[in-house]
Amino acid sequence: MNAPERMPPDGRVRAVVEGIAPMVDGGRFAVKRVIGDEMVVEADCFTDGHDQLVCSLHYRYDEDNAWSEQRMQPLGNDRWRAGFVCARLGTWHYRVSARVDSFLSWRAEFARRVDGEDMRIAARVGADLISAAAERAGGVHSVQLGEWVLRLLGAGDLEALRREGMDENLAALVLRYPDADIAPAISVELRVTVERERARYSAWYELFPRSAGRPGEHGSFDDVIRLLPEIAGMGFDVLYLPPIHPIGREQRKGVNNTLIARAEDVGSPWAIGAAEGGHKAIHPQLGAPADFRRLVEAARSHGMEVALDIAYQCAPDHPYVRDYPAWFRWRPDGKVQYAENPPKKYQDIYPFDFTSSDWQNLWFELGSVLEFWIGEGVRIFRIDNPHTKPFPFWEWVIAAIKRQYPEVIFLAEAFTRPRIMHRLAKAGFTQSYTYFAWRNTKQELTEYFTELCSGPGREYFRPNCWPNTPDILTEHLQYGGTAAFMARAALAATLSANYGIYGPAFELMESAPREHGSEEYLDSEKYQLRNWDRARSDSLAPFLGRLNRIRRENPALHHDWRLRFHPIDNDSMICYSKSTADMENVIITVVNLDPHNVQSGWVTLDLDWLRVDPAHSYQMHELLSGARYLWNGPRNFVRLEPARAPVHIFHLGRHLRTERDFDYFL
Amino acid sequence: MNAPERMPPDGRVRAVVEGIAPMVDGGRFAVKRVIGDEMVVEADCFTDGHDQLVCSLHYRYDEDNAWSEQRMQPLGNDRWRAGFVCARLGTWHYRVSARVDSFLSWRAEFARRVDGEDMRIAARVGADLISAAAERAGGVHSVQLGEWVLRLLGAGDLEALRREGMDENLAALVLRYPDADIAPAISVELRVTVERERARYSAWYELFPRSAGRPGEHGSFDDVIRLLPEIAGMGFDVLYLPPIHPIGREQRKGVNNTLIARAEDVGSPWAIGAAEGGHKAIHPQLGAPADFRRLVEAARSHGMEVALDIAYQCAPDHPYVRDYPAWFRWRPDGKVQYAENPPKKYQDIYPFDFTSSDWQNLWFELGSVLEFWIGEGVRIFRIDNPHTKPFPFWEWVIAAIKRQYPEVIFLAEAFTRPRIMHRLAKAGFTQSYTYFAWRNTKQELTEYFTELCSGPGREYFRPNCWPNTPDILTEHLQYGGTAAFMARAALAATLSANYGIYGPAFELMESAPREHGSEEYLDSEKYQLRNWDRARSDSLAPFLGRLNRIRRENPALHHDWRLRFHPIDNDSMICYSKSTADMENVIITVVNLDPHNVQSGWVTLDLDWLRVDPAHSYQMHELLSGARYLWNGPRNFVRLEPARAPVHIFHLGRHLRTERDFDYFL
Repeated sequence: MNAPERMPPDGRVRAVVEGIAPMVDGGRFAVKRVIGDEMVVEADCFTDGHDQLVCSLHYRYDEDNAWSEQRMQPLGNDRWRAGFVCARLGTWHYRVSARVDSFLSWRAEFARRVDGEDMRIAARVGADLISAAAERAGGVHSVQLGEWVLRLLGAGDLEALRREGMDENLAALVLRYPDADIAPAISVELRVTVERERARYSAWYELFPRSAGRPGEHGSFDDVIRLLPEIAGMGFDVLYLPPIHPIGREQRKGVNNTLIARAEDVGSPWAIGAAEGGHKAIHPQLGAPADFRRLVEAARSHGMEVALDIAYQCAPDHPYVRDYPAWFRWRPDGKVQYAENPPKKYQDIYPFDFTSSDWQNLWFELGSVLEFWIGEGVRIFRIDNPHTKPFPFWEWVIAAIKRQYPEVIFLAEAFTRPRIMHRLAKAGFTQSYTYFAWRNTKQELTEYFTELCSGPGREYFRPNCWPNTPDILTEHLQYGGTAAFMARAALAATLSANYGIYGPAFELMESAPREHGSEEYLDSEKYQLRNWDRARSDSLAPFLGRLNRIRRENPALHHDWRLRFHPIDNDSMICYSKSTADMENVIITVVNLDPHNVQSGWVTLDLDWLRVDPAHSYQMHELLSGARYLWNGPRNFVRLEPARAPVHIFHLGRHLRTERDFDYFL
Repeated sequence: MNAPERMPPDGRVRAVVEGIAPMVDGGRFAVKRVIGDEMVVEADCFTDGHDQLVCSLHYRYDEDNAWSEQRMQPLGNDRWRAGFVCARLGTWHYRVSARVDSFLSWRAEFARRVDGEDMRIAARVGADLISAAAERAGGVHSVQLGEWVLRLLGAGDLEALRREGMDENLAALVLRYPDADIAPAISVELRVTVERERARYSAWYELFPRSAGRPGEHGSFDDVIRLLPEIAGMGFDVLYLPPIHPIGREQRKGVNNTLIARAEDVGSPWAIGAAEGGHKAIHPQLGAPADFRRLVEAARSHGMEVALDIAYQCAPDHPYVRDYPAWFRWRPDGKVQYAENPPKKYQDIYPFDFTSSDWQNLWFELGSVLEFWIGEGVRIFRIDNPHTKPFPFWEWVIAAIKRQYPEVIFLAEAFTRPRIMHRLAKAGFTQSYTYFAWRNTKQELTEYFTELCSGPGREYFRPNCWPNTPDILTEHLQYGGTAAFMARAALAATLSANYGIYGPAFELMESAPREHGSEEYLDSEKYQLRNWDRARSDSLAPFLGRLNRIRRENPALHHDWRLRFHPIDNDSMICYSKSTADMENVIITVVNLDPHNVQSGWVTLDLDWLRVDPAHSYQMHELLSGARYLWNGPRNFVRLEPARAPVHIFHLGRHLRTERDFDYFL
């Protein structure tokens, strides 16, 4: 037996706080929210015996501020809940406390007492508790509490006594001065990163500025500025540019990733750095720094933001290689180790050695690259291959940047194993690329989006879904034709609040692979200029414009968590809805996943959940075509022809009950 | 941007360890195992990029011993696993480490190299790594590694070079001397409490010794000794006695819990303490300390252990009340506060104030009560109402006792809300009472035991299932007759490796409640002596004996985790199996849950999982009756008559393939 001095110092803390949600890895990482969200926190709080608890959610903005407190409400089964509004960008801290409250415990027993003698004795116990609170209170409350003591001890009949003892005002007043001798149980401190709305809801358009010029000419920022009305017209709000830095000449890759570049070959923008400069410089043919700033401004005036691609790697002729040899790995033959994953070689790219002896200076410099572009007006970064750089680096650099610029958004371009993608998201990335491009069947889509939108990862992993990228031309797009492009865009835009496309390859339905079995584009813009005929009559630009307008006009599509799949009795078709929490805005999407054949099936909706009156028909307004359908009951028929439109995006209109409803829906 | 000095000190730790299982509340509490178990630990381990990891499970017995290390094996998807054998009773510690290994990473790339020039350069890189290992090694290994360097650099053709570089012996040797410059990621330290087998597998028999005497006489330990052959004959291995201490005289309760006791009333054994002594004394009419020790010894000689009931509360005349007034709550009228839950009152019981100013001395004294009875030979304690005492007390006292006596078993008698029951189990209780008594339907049983046997709580919450207790005579038993008693005993004994009954009330099918709607027994032994006719011809003692023999002979029933429910197309019937990990022992139980009517149905078994050859019939040996059935295919018919036997307990015999099998099954 331990001697008493070895007993736990908190042996008198009878309350317990457990099972806090949300919480990522025991509080090791922050959860994510956007500004204006209510941060709802739940916990299991209880104590031994029958005593009553006071449970509180404590929260504060950043480390420097004082805690605010919100009383939690019991949900039953020892679960408690409270929330606070994420009113500012940045890091908020929260924790949960629970303490046994003597007065509430007394009151709960007092309420159940029936014996007069018991009640008189209990009144004296209660009076003692109130007197103690009066002493702690001081001032006018002390006087008021003193009066309650007299009322309790002097109550004439039992009914009066019960009334006095159970008075709500008395309880509220006593609760303001809790017994400091009863130590509360206090949870660990947890964090929530509050970001701006675009973190949760955005539509990205990627293009290569160098292909924006006139046929045969190297494009520039000015050429991109000319395209802005068109891109904004399609409804995108993020314009994402591959790296804009000087491109290495040493070991430059030729067209279609050939090993030997010809003199006229422009090289890969991801082979960063040359005599003209590195990660803080601009490729001269794109323009000058002032031109870039004009582009950022022009985009803003069109309601778009410019996102830059940050690829932490160097071409062999990047100035860093000469100036900071310690930041690279050297081979026994005196050369720098280029990137490789044998037998694949990337001779035009030198990776940094993030754990070199000079790692701290390297990290600092890499962080300063972000700061530099923030100085140029950039607030969104798409990070290239973050999974090949250490997690502690990302955790540090993202926190360091966001401490000063909490509005900055980081998109992780990692297509790798699930744990690694999740760890990057935990490390602080705002959004993450996903496996969406390779999820084509109904089962794949249902399972994957159920995991993304309902699984525990949703607290920190925000999906950003892309049907294509310069690296990814899926087999489905190679062979599916127009219907596949339309369906994949619609799926991305309605399943995921964040999505993007690589254009104009997407809207012009570029579908030729470099070779059979490859997901690389033939004549990829990664290695050469391309001349795009944006005015082509079959361009999907108008369709994308409608998609993005539907997204903008329907708040149900601005969130990921309220996704629900609905049965449809055809495995080539998928049906799902998104809705606002108040169910005022409900979007029901039906997609024909087969790009080659007409498909039809019966959709089954949960009318009760949709708050549809089953006694009346309801209007399904198809937002792409403008067509209106009257549906009846839970089961309704949908037929989708890939040659016309492989997707219906319905706005659910409920039974028209009032003039106002009528106006709204028609 | 932070200055470099604000960078994380572990910025160069590239490996990650996450998602360790098992783990309770992030390591706040220990998981539980029994001696001889393999403690299997899994974790997600990964790093950025393509480098290779070495992952290890580290474990040690108690704080004082050195860590042992077991290399973990990859399971795919970044999951790793290793295990160690829990070879001693007590607390073991474990943690997981992962580190990037330069040589393994080199080797993995070397294996994929095809270019001769690359291989020669890689050989030099590898030689450097081996040389560094040689320096760290010293001695003969240093010489051996030096020879490998020469072999690698001097290899003639590429095939020889590949062979040398990929040699398993080389890798094994280099791995013994890892680069200390590459810091591993190390998880938090976790704990496992290793207990003896009876913690996991036990059959309890509760009886009131004072009712063991001749009709009308107060029973004694000697009377219990006389009953031992009979109880042991029923196959029980724990003999649990309600409190054996002097019973208070002040406020003593009369028969059927009446407020005023007559002179001859014996009072409740849970009203502990009188002039003769308190928690360390024995009620004089039961016997002397030496008699108790004889009982403990006699039980042991019958293969049983005596379990004592520890109720931390006092009768008003307990010596503690006089000697340690600070340990109790005092009312304003100068009386000690008795136990109450208004409007219910327990005037014969004073609770301790566990958080009084003198709490440390109180706790120490309460711990010494356990030590005292351990000194008298007791190693199993059933703890009364632990949920009305603070959790920190239990965590401290159980740890303090088990540090010195790791063989001690604690059973928590808490019938309260789920979070509280779980918290007690986490705090250290070996076994826990359950809601079993009130789970009667197929759905209730299936859901509850799925949770108990498959839910996360199984790592720490070991169910002990009782069809009845002196406090619990369920409505089902009151009205169900013999069939209900048989079915409930069989369910408890086969669903739960730990189970118990309160006898002889159980085997004599005592079923009269104190009043309609009550779960209290009429003329409860809690307040009076009872004279039991153990020889009654309808006693279920032989049935219980068969049940317990079946349990003993079938290791499948010694564990809880491998429970599986099987479909049966009748909602009044339930079918489930338990099996050993090697599937050598499979017990399939079918119960008619309706005590009033014959029920029949088709059972569907998963033959593949059961390793039954679907091309042949298989033998189902009904172990209660001895009957043998030949079943064919997955679906077979079962009919159970409550008047005969409401349960079948089948031993699964597979297709008889060899003489040996034939002998075994027939």
